[in-house]
Amino acid sequence: MILENERLDELHRKGYKIIQDPNRFCFGMDAVLLSAFANVRKGEKVLDIGTGTGIIPILMEARYGGESYVGIEIQEDVADMASRSVKYNNLEDKIVIDNADVKDALELYGSSHFDVITTNPPYMTVDKGLVNPSDTKALSRHEISVKLEDIMSISSKILKNKGRFYMIHRPARLVEIMNVMRKYNLEIKRIRMVHPYIDKEANMVLIEAMHDGKPFLKVENPLIVYEKSGEYTKEVMDIYYGG
Amino acid sequence: MILENERLDELHRKGYKIIQDPNRFCFGMDAVLLSAFANVRKGEKVLDIGTGTGIIPILMEARYGGESYVGIEIQEDVADMASRSVKYNNLEDKIVIDNADVKDALELYGSSHFDVITTNPPYMTVDKGLVNPSDTKALSRHEISVKLEDIMSISSKILKNKGRFYMIHRPARLVEIMNVMRKYNLEIKRIRMVHPYIDKEANMVLIEAMHDGKPFLKVENPLIVYEKSGEYTKEVMDIYYGG
Repeated sequence: MILENERLDELHRKGYKIIQDPNRFCFGMDAVLLSAFANVRKGEKVLDIGTGTGIIPILMEARYGGESYVGIEIQEDVADMASRSVKYNNLEDKIVIDNADVKDALELYGSSHFDVITTNPPYMTVDKGLVNPSDTKALSRHEISVKLEDIMSISSKILKNKGRFYMIHRPARLVEIMNVMRKYNLEIKRIRMVHPYIDKEANMVLIEAMHDGKPFLKVENPLIVYEKSGEYTKEVMDIYYGG
Repeated sequence: MILENERLDELHRKGYKIIQDPNRFCFGMDAVLLSAFANVRKGEKVLDIGTGTGIIPILMEARYGGESYVGIEIQEDVADMASRSVKYNNLEDKIVIDNADVKDALELYGSSHFDVITTNPPYMTVDKGLVNPSDTKALSRHEISVKLEDIMSISSKILKNKGRFYMIHRPARLVEIMNVMRKYNLEIKRIRMVHPYIDKEANMVLIEAMHDGKPFLKVENPLIVYEKSGEYTKEVMDIYYGG
């Protein structure tokens, strides 16, 4: 079940493990923080856009339960690896990995289908430096196969009325994000800035929006990653290893 | 120079004082934080929209120097009080208080006139509860005489190309702010969240925008007002009393 060059990593939740290829893109802290920031309730159906290794649905299933999860991933071999992680954890009844383009999501799932959408999308636009479109890392980091506006346009169609949308992204693009999301009636209700240290600028922002929600934003207390000593803060330790 | 019911308060900068009427609206921490967050360089011309007591131009002159300041204030008696504070501090050569409606600013000052605009506008829309439009406090807190979009529309006309716009506002309205400011080519370049305590949500947001600036937002380290003990943090003490 585990191919050459792949490895099996502990997730420290319900004994789950995940298959990753260290030569390609491994999940980062952003996926872990997003899974903790998001929320899934009993009976809810969840879609993770650009699921990669499947880390977000697997972590969310461990945290929240929920009715069912779909992870959509455009790269065939990456989707295959994610499917094997689902199987390894005996989660085939709860999590499905679809090897497909998110632009086909409306045809695949139908309108107003999901209660929750999550995504840890590429952070960089393609005009930022040279990128190799056949490279897995480039696809994960740059908006080659899907742009921010595509994600919002599609999400607003396949998300139920009052459904929730969770994303982690770069603060540098927050003005654009707030403009595009409002355009597609994904009203941002809650954000949380992630700062590496208390005295440093934010390098990630966690976002919760509601489809057709009323405008009123809550900016939560900052999430600080490291103590001055360079060790993880208690909150981040709890997110990684806590109950 | 100081009327009955008024009092003279210390500003802890260059010996400046300010006249306030405690029965009406006194300046708050927001004005002090904005004056510290903003920046004025040598030779620059500054406008403060809705200047009230004149607190922001007076504090900014003390901090940064700058070429000249105009404070525009619609209420005649409040503008008169601000003018007397300017006179009390012998700042008539640097600061002018205009008793006028900001909606007339284009006719008053001409297009592309200011290098810097500051504003600590009313935070609340008028649909939030009953307000008495003749009340000074209501005018300061509710968008009775001027709306957020009016401020942006006018500012983009009277601000120079690459001129800077500084505002403090409520995080609850940040999505709207980001949409309206981009509409008027005021590109937000820098924000800072103000949290009363490290573990509480933000209750103010400091914003710097550039007229016709390129999109790229920096989210600075959070500004925390109180230590757990309830005392001001060192940073806030320095903003109030520091050099």
